[in-house]
This record gives sequence, structure tokens and C-alpha cells, in this order.
Amino acid sequence: MNATSHSIQLETEGNCDILDLTDSLQRVVEESGVVRGQANAMVVGSTAALSTVEFEPGLVDDDIESALEDIAPEDGHYEHEKTWGDDNGHSHVRATLLGPSLALPVVDGEIPFGTWQQPVLLDLDTRPRSRTVVVTVVGE
Amino acid sequence: MNATSHSIQLETEGNCDILDLTDSLQRVVEESGVVRGQANAMVVGSTAALSTVEFEPGLVDDDIESALEDIAPEDGHYEHEKTWGDDNGHSHVRATLLGPSLALPVVDGEIPFGTWQQPVLLDLDTRPRSRTVVVTVVGE
Amino acid sequence: MNATSHSIQLETEGNCDILDLTDSLQRVVEESGVVRGQANAMVVGSTAALSTVEFEPGLVDDDIESALEDIAPEDGHYEHEKTWGDDNGHSHVRATLLGPSLALPVVDGEIPFGTWQQPVLLDLDTRPRSRTVVVTVVGE
Repeated sequence: MNATSHSIQLETEGNCDILDLTDSLQRVVEESGVVRGQANAMVVGSTAALSTVEFEPGLVDDDIESALEDIAPEDGHYEHEKTWGDDNGHSHVRATLLGPSLALPVVDGEIPFGTWQQPVLLDLDTRPRSRTVVVTVVGE
Repeated sequence: MNATSHSIQLETEGNCDILDLTDSLQRVVEESGVVRGQANAMVVGSTAALSTVEFEPGLVDDDIESALEDIAPEDGHYEHEKTWGDDNGHSHVRATLLGPSLALPVVDGEIPFGTWQQPVLLDLDTRPRSRTVVVTVVGE
Repeated sequence: MNATSHSIQLETEGNCDILDLTDSLQRVVEESGVVRGQANAMVVGSTAALSTVEFEPGLVDDDIESALEDIAPEDGHYEHEKTWGDDNGHSHVRATLLGPSLALPVVDGEIPFGTWQQPVLLDLDTRPRSRTVVVTVVGE
């Protein structure tokens, strides 16, 4: 049994920029040497989230953002913006609804995502950000 | 310490079919022999999700689907459907919002769900599907 | 390698009461003795959820609840309430959308949350509740 920690660094454009983590996560599992076990991935920060999506332009550039704009509109009223003079109340609300983490199984040295299923970072903030996804892998 | 992997196979009706995973997941933990540790469960595919719900007909047959229909309507406009000629843009958006995985603790050889809390697969696609939930259990 | 289980007990006010779990979770990791590995946290019950948020009054007392009220209004129509004569259909729907668990990495004996990112319990029920968050920590 083995436990390793890894850090994935990403530069985003913010504003619902969605980045494909497939290669980064599979590389982390390979580096860990774990063949069977699990990986916990969490994005650091309160205006980003992790999930999975079919990584094609229609969903990634339009449909996900449209749905989030309906749920928490960019020009809505947010008390958060009074607290700090910020402009990103919608970013925080969206991030909390989506959630910061993924609980991933590792089987045969890989995470068994579907062919059309890509793990992604969603950067919901209003400006470009440097992001860190922390991953630990435990198993044998 | 021990790490095992398991695959739960399910036949769904699609269209927000919600299936109770309680027995499958508790059986997986029993098979693993792990008494204390954790289970990571992930559905394979980008039009399904995992969560928990009180598994009673009001929520499972009506209320969850109604809320998802408000968030991402079946007859809404989705760029995804232009990309592929598909009809399931809403399925993808709903799945990304709900998320594909559950991070479960294992205590005394069981997952300590509440009495009225059932783990579920939500199949959000527009047709019946064969689904796989992959689970790994790590612990002692 | 080591696997420990922990139980965090909380008294809430219900009605979208949001409680900061930072100290409780970091204490659990400290008690576990695990330096590198992972923690799976799950709230017991079907009307509460776990996520992360910047724990400041604007978001915690207003903005998150407003977004959830748009998604699943308290005075909406819920078949769940016909089944049981309950008044908390919206609580269940919100909990299922948010999800019950967090998949947390442990690095250098801590969970690497961001400075402005706090793990929280959201109690979505319509009355004060005693809540249990179960956490298991696995690693070395």
C-alpha cells in the first residue's frame, strides 16, 4: 500500500473557462505507481469547481455557462459584493453548487472515465487565475 | 490494509430514471472485507450522475426531475445538439451540475447512510442505457 | 498505512444554516496521525449537504440561500409533501443537487483548502437538527 500527493498547476482565463484534466490526472496515477485504489482531487479556492463533461465545444464553450448564468446570473444581486466590493458573487455561488472535489476510483493503473467523459476544472471567477488541483492517490 | 475494485452493472430506462444503489454498495463493501476505510464510487459516462436522496416515489418519480427540468429544460437550446445532431444537451448539463462521484466513508464494515438516505444513480440520458458504477474500497 | 474513523456532531438551526467545518476537519486529520493520504467526509441524512464556500456573511447568510430558493423554492409544489405530509420537499431536492460528500486530499498532515475556502455543512431542512458528519482518513 502506498500514498502519494500531487499538485496540478493550471493557468485559466476565468469566466467559466473549462479545462480538460484527463491527461494530468492519468499522469498523476501513473506517477503514483498505484494499480488499484483511489484518487481524491480537490481544487484549491472558492470560485472554481471540479466535475466531468463530454469535452466538446458546444457544452464547454456555451451550454454549461448558459445553465450557470440561469442559476446564478453574473449581473444578479449578491450581498457578497457589498462585503468586499467584489464583482464575483455569482462565481462563489456557482462554485458551491458544483462542488470542489472528485472521488475517483483507480483500476488497472487508470481512472476508468468513459470515452466521452472528461474530468474538468471549471474556473468561475471573473478574471484569469493560476489554479492548483491537489490530488492524493492511495492503494496498492 | 487492502484495496479492491468492483463494478456495479445497471440497466436503466433513461429520462431521469433514478436507481437505488444501497444494496449494491453495501454488498461491495462486504465483499471487500474492509471494516474501516473508504469507498470511492463513480458512474462511467457523461449523461449520468451519483447522489443521495430519500428514495420515495414523490422525490424519485417527480420532484427531482421537475427541478432539473427548470435548471436545464429538455426542449431548451443546446449547442451540443448542433455538434452531434444529438437530442441530449440537457442530459449533459444536468450530469455536470450533479457530479459523477461519491466519497463514502466505511465504518464497522458498512457505509453509514441515514435511515432515509439512499445512494442513487440518476440516468439523465434520453434513452435506456446499460450503466457501470465503478467502486474501489481501501482500508483495513 | 492507517485507517481511522471519526464522527463530527453539530447542532444546526435548519433553513439553510451553513456551518464552517474547517476546524473540525483539520482536527480529525490531526487525530488520525495521517500525514499523506485522503479523507472522505459524508453528512448523514437526506436534507443536508457538504461543499466549500468563502465563509463570509454575504454568501453564507444570503446569496447561497437565494440561489437555492430560485432552484427549488420553499413554497413550490412537491409530490414528496403529499407522500408524508411533510413541508420539506425543497430541502430534499436542494440536498440531492448539492451532494452529501467531499473527497479531500491530505498533504503534510492537513487538508489544503484555500485561504478563502471553507468546508461547510448546509442544513437545508425546515427545523433545527442534530447532524453527524462521518469522516474516514486513510494514508500514512
